[in-house]
Amino acid sequence: MSERRPLKVALLGCGSVGSEVARLMTANAADLAARIGAPVELAGVAVRRTGVDRPGIPDELVTTDATALVKRGDIDVVIELIGGLEPARTLLTTAFAHGASVVTGNKALLAEDGPSLHAAADSRGVDLYYEAAVAGAIPLVRPLRESLAGDRVDRVIGILNGTTNFILDRMDTSGAGYAEALEEATALGYAEADPTADVEGYDAAAKAAILAGIAFHTRVRFDDVHRQGITEITAADMAAAARMGCTVKLLAICERTPDGRSVTARVHPAMIPLTHPLASVREAYNAVFVEAAAAGQLMFYGPGAGGAPTASAVLGDLVAVCRHRLSGGSGPGESAYAQLPVAPPGGVVTRYHISLDVADRAGVLAHVAAVFAEHDVSIDTVRQQGKDGEASLVVVTHRATDAALAATVEALRRLETVRGVASIMRVEGE
Amino acid sequence: MSERRPLKVALLGCGSVGSEVARLMTANAADLAARIGAPVELAGVAVRRTGVDRPGIPDELVTTDATALVKRGDIDVVIELIGGLEPARTLLTTAFAHGASVVTGNKALLAEDGPSLHAAADSRGVDLYYEAAVAGAIPLVRPLRESLAGDRVDRVIGILNGTTNFILDRMDTSGAGYAEALEEATALGYAEADPTADVEGYDAAAKAAILAGIAFHTRVRFDDVHRQGITEITAADMAAAARMGCTVKLLAICERTPDGRSVTARVHPAMIPLTHPLASVREAYNAVFVEAAAAGQLMFYGPGAGGAPTASAVLGDLVAVCRHRLSGGSGPGESAYAQLPVAPPGGVVTRYHISLDVADRAGVLAHVAAVFAEHDVSIDTVRQQGKDGEASLVVVTHRATDAALAATVEALRRLETVRGVASIMRVEGE
Repeated sequence: MSERRPLKVALLGCGSVGSEVARLMTANAADLAARIGAPVELAGVAVRRTGVDRPGIPDELVTTDATALVKRGDIDVVIELIGGLEPARTLLTTAFAHGASVVTGNKALLAEDGPSLHAAADSRGVDLYYEAAVAGAIPLVRPLRESLAGDRVDRVIGILNGTTNFILDRMDTSGAGYAEALEEATALGYAEADPTADVEGYDAAAKAAILAGIAFHTRVRFDDVHRQGITEITAADMAAAARMGCTVKLLAICERTPDGRSVTARVHPAMIPLTHPLASVREAYNAVFVEAAAAGQLMFYGPGAGGAPTASAVLGDLVAVCRHRLSGGSGPGESAYAQLPVAPPGGVVTRYHISLDVADRAGVLAHVAAVFAEHDVSIDTVRQQGKDGEASLVVVTHRATDAALAATVEALRRLETVRGVASIMRVEGE
Repeated sequence: MSERRPLKVALLGCGSVGSEVARLMTANAADLAARIGAPVELAGVAVRRTGVDRPGIPDELVTTDATALVKRGDIDVVIELIGGLEPARTLLTTAFAHGASVVTGNKALLAEDGPSLHAAADSRGVDLYYEAAVAGAIPLVRPLRESLAGDRVDRVIGILNGTTNFILDRMDTSGAGYAEALEEATALGYAEADPTADVEGYDAAAKAAILAGIAFHTRVRFDDVHRQGITEITAADMAAAARMGCTVKLLAICERTPDGRSVTARVHPAMIPLTHPLASVREAYNAVFVEAAAAGQLMFYGPGAGGAPTASAVLGDLVAVCRHRLSGGSGPGESAYAQLPVAPPGGVVTRYHISLDVADRAGVLAHVAAVFAEHDVSIDTVRQQGKDGEASLVVVTHRATDAALAATVEALRRLETVRGVASIMRVEGE
């Protein structure tokens, strides 16, 4: 085994994940060689600027010219941990053109361009693996692509962003408001200085697009994902959820339409029952709940981010693509053969929890109930509270299409007796 | 793609799982062909006796001669769902000798003979896949073998038997005793007429051996697993656990010893905190909690048994081995290269919850405490209850080696003031 020529790896990006990948490749070199069947060595590390201390990485391996590195011709695997659309996209297509397999954690690029990147890899008979792009350490891409390859996935519900789950978990357990919980998350390093990508749901939406594409064997892009973040969630919303035996999570929900002819993908806050497995996902953990025709209900849970967990996913992919290169094969690729259109979420069936500020007088409830009836939305429960001439009305509906519910809310806003819509939250997972 | 010659599959066994596999292969034939890259067809089904109605399976495919089927020479994949050591072992080695890859659900055989079967497969360059042997539909073997291949697994804790988890869950939620819960499980089909293999922990121990071997890249056999079933669990044990904020589960615990030089594998009932993710595994679901050096804490959850869930796992493996046959490669195999000895569980560090019936007089606690001190086991909490001249003493220890704890219990039994040991339970997952 040790006589085999070493497989050469180019590492693009040396941040928290990249430096951990480099460290593990060195620390676990013997184990990796045993599992792959040949030694693996770092042939180069592309960084943005030199002069930074990188313990464990020999200076002669460090370069700022990523393009030259991937064009070398003797590179077996390119690990891309730069992120973003460019220059990553060009670097990866160059890597494929030079016969290298790719392991990446780049969710933005995959959500935007997954199918064409897969096609480029397939045309050269090399691999494109990206477990690290979706849910950190949790093996998810491989189980969906491979273990469930003989099954039919009907729905995937995920908590895919650790920052927002940490914030919502704090709000739930401590009664804190959004701003206070975000502050705590930032202080503890769970939120970045600019948390927009996380709290607005961009991160979760990119991951949802990737997951949906794999689950349903069809192309789903970032723009196809209906997205709403957590910035409007209040302590009152949390309390309302608790009264219903629920908690509030930022959920990514990808599902087939009932007729099976299209798929939907959405990311938004939702109430889920405390008895649902996803309700017990705490702090910055992620989890994905899969419903498959034969397998039933599966859940995968673990750290969704962080240098070491994400590096674990990268190394798992590295072992796989290295083995393939030795044996002459390649992984399953990702043929989006199903070619299902992505439907807008209007047809999605869900429930709403609506909190209205209304005038405190007789007849308000009748007006409100009539609006629901006009839109064919059944009411499950209503709670009225009145004080000082103002009142609040909390309505929980039965299941209806998202379009009917949205139209109902718009009509409610136009009622003279409705002062405003304090909050709207979907109720899922029942 | 449709011009490719079909891959031929021999199915051995047509019980609840086998018939579901056959059904899904027919119902999903187009999807399977798309994912594999070639059509797959059932070339023969070996059964114990003919004359049984098998809807969906053409009579001409059914045979009672499994040996002749696997010797045919044109079989690509043998799916073995017979179970047990023989004739399965001989049929599988024959299959390998004739160049066929194998997909099996046979935990008893793998726990007994895994390494030699792997060697036989490797020597012919074919695959041996067995996701269905461990935890039904839950992708577990593949994530451990492949996704975590670049990581180091330190501990695996699993609920691997649905029958016993259902029984314990009923005892926990309804306060029922063991016999009553077993009766309910049998009536609902969660327990077989002879439930010995499940309630005595044989099933879980075989699965633990397989998981430990994969997790630690070393050979662990069924006989290496310290095994204790749930038949002695009482409603009082459940109540004691609840008082401690715990529940009782039948856990399979596989871990490296602190010095890293050996591994241990055990199956026994244990208390775990209600806050532990495994505590929320209800009814007949299974779950496996993995602790890896880089990935951190991962959990996999889903149906551990049943025709359709297990068939899902078989089909996932079928897709993989078929793809490998088309591309000329094979899966990772399972080199037990680490060759770690399996240590007896005496060195395992755990906590005990011990309930003693003692004489109700002064000095008993001092005697009991002295015994713990002699064996270097620290006491965490003690609760005494006395009535009618008899008393019970409930001791919860701090962490100590299982050997020291067992020796302590033996010494306690010999005390004149100790009438008997009512129950001993390990406390895990903290």
